[in-house]
Amino acid sequence: MKVHYECAACYLRQAREALDLATSDESLKMEIMEDIIRTLGENFRNGAVTNQMGTAMHRNIKKKTGNRDPYQDQREKCNQIAQQFLPLIVKLLEDDNSLKNYLKAAITGNIIDFGALGLETDIKDLILKNMQKDLAIDHSAQLEKELKKAQNVLYLADNIGEIVFDKLLIEKIKEYQVKVIMALKEEPILNDACIPDALEIGLDEVAELTSIGTDSIGIIYYDASSQFREIFQNADLVIAKGLGNYEGLDEMDLGEKPVFCLLNAKCKPVAREIGVKTGDSVVMRI
Amino acid sequence: MKVHYECAACYLRQAREALDLATSDESLKMEIMEDIIRTLGENFRNGAVTNQMGTAMHRNIKKKTGNRDPYQDQREKCNQIAQQFLPLIVKLLEDDNSLKNYLKAAITGNIIDFGALGLETDIKDLILKNMQKDLAIDHSAQLEKELKKAQNVLYLADNIGEIVFDKLLIEKIKEYQVKVIMALKEEPILNDACIPDALEIGLDEVAELTSIGTDSIGIIYYDASSQFREIFQNADLVIAKGLGNYEGLDEMDLGEKPVFCLLNAKCKPVAREIGVKTGDSVVMRI
Repeated sequence: MKVHYECAACYLRQAREALDLATSDESLKMEIMEDIIRTLGENFRNGAVTNQMGTAMHRNIKKKTGNRDPYQDQREKCNQIAQQFLPLIVKLLEDDNSLKNYLKAAITGNIIDFGALGLETDIKDLILKNMQKDLAIDHSAQLEKELKKAQNVLYLADNIGEIVFDKLLIEKIKEYQVKVIMALKEEPILNDACIPDALEIGLDEVAELTSIGTDSIGIIYYDASSQFREIFQNADLVIAKGLGNYEGLDEMDLGEKPVFCLLNAKCKPVAREIGVKTGDSVVMRI
Repeated sequence: MKVHYECAACYLRQAREALDLATSDESLKMEIMEDIIRTLGENFRNGAVTNQMGTAMHRNIKKKTGNRDPYQDQREKCNQIAQQFLPLIVKLLEDDNSLKNYLKAAITGNIIDFGALGLETDIKDLILKNMQKDLAIDHSAQLEKELKKAQNVLYLADNIGEIVFDKLLIEKIKEYQVKVIMALKEEPILNDACIPDALEIGLDEVAELTSIGTDSIGIIYYDASSQFREIFQNADLVIAKGLGNYEGLDEMDLGEKPVFCLLNAKCKPVAREIGVKTGDSVVMRI
């Protein structure tokens, strides 16, 4: 995806948040912020690619602060918090065990910021609200059709916490007699899930775990490892979670490969691109 | 005041908001945003002055969109909304008619975003909460002492809506037998009050109204008119509302002139500079 005018403010908000998490050295934060704005000033224009700009910015913050994982505190607690809500989700999926309901559960995991929300009731309400809400774009029937034809499914993970809900969807997907490979980040970036985060909740029991070979936001195809690119090419079907993966896949020539994005349109630029309202959830073949 | 690392994100958030209010032409918004970021990239560094950068940015948006008052909708309704709460404020000031309580009322006017808050109960709760809360820095006794000595008081206004509450404080101040000149913006910028906004609520009945001669955020001394600079020099006492005025006065050589800032530390950089917590209110001689 290419940048929209709103993205600039969002980059700097993210930069401020990441800097606050990465270091308490205020003069260093100022120095890095100056550098980020200079770089943004040189590169933010019509046609610039969102993931490339965001990735460069977060790598810069990690490198200059010497903090390889500013979101480590969240990493330590998000999976744990998400797992507390497994019984609720399992109950909702028992009541309606359609593939679509599992897809909605996985998107619900993407909506909830397990790091920011502390109160149990907040999260419970959010889960119930989002499981009730209809999809604004619903290609779940197409996805099911492709699943029935597929042998190899590549699942692109997004955040920690969220992967607890992904595990349920992957278990459901395996009922279609497919092999699932879940791709995670090689190194921490934002609160994106890495292989150790997936191992922590036993995702290796339901999927083969791999990494994209780097720490990009979403997928930047030329930046991913050749091993990952081979997995991507060999996959019969790709299921991608979240905004970053959508933004990256939107930049790729996907040919005939069935690629489905499961996401909540959290920001206006993405909502505008896919033609839904901010806050809408979609299961969308791109 | 000089920029802090957090200011960059705040500038771009403001830019996005102002652009959304100023025009619906999305390619124009992108074009202007590119320009804003390029300028920010060239100028945002240690030592840059907050008001100068913010003013340049908002002037750029007004000029390039051809919209001289992006906040016009707010301008039309904020004074009206604020006036609905006058009886409540008047009652609170009857219960405690000390100068300090009037100062707190004026700061409460500064805290409330009458444009953003629609629900009557929200605003009522905010007023009651902020009138109960103590000042984190309280130089109101010093201010009273200076008032007793003064003949000419210059009152630097901030936002529309808020000026309804300022009127009550100015009436109180006039009990000290002083002449009050209220300075407003010559042209709209953000939701800052201009002379017509003040006339609308009869501020000319309690104060002489003047403008700073330009549309800067707060005061940028060299940018103000010579007429305003003369008024400033002749004032025995200056009372300044809000963050923008504090940020501008902080850049000036005030000599021995008693200048008091009435503000709520809405952002971390200002809170850090004056040594209070975000959200604290102060009556502070600077």
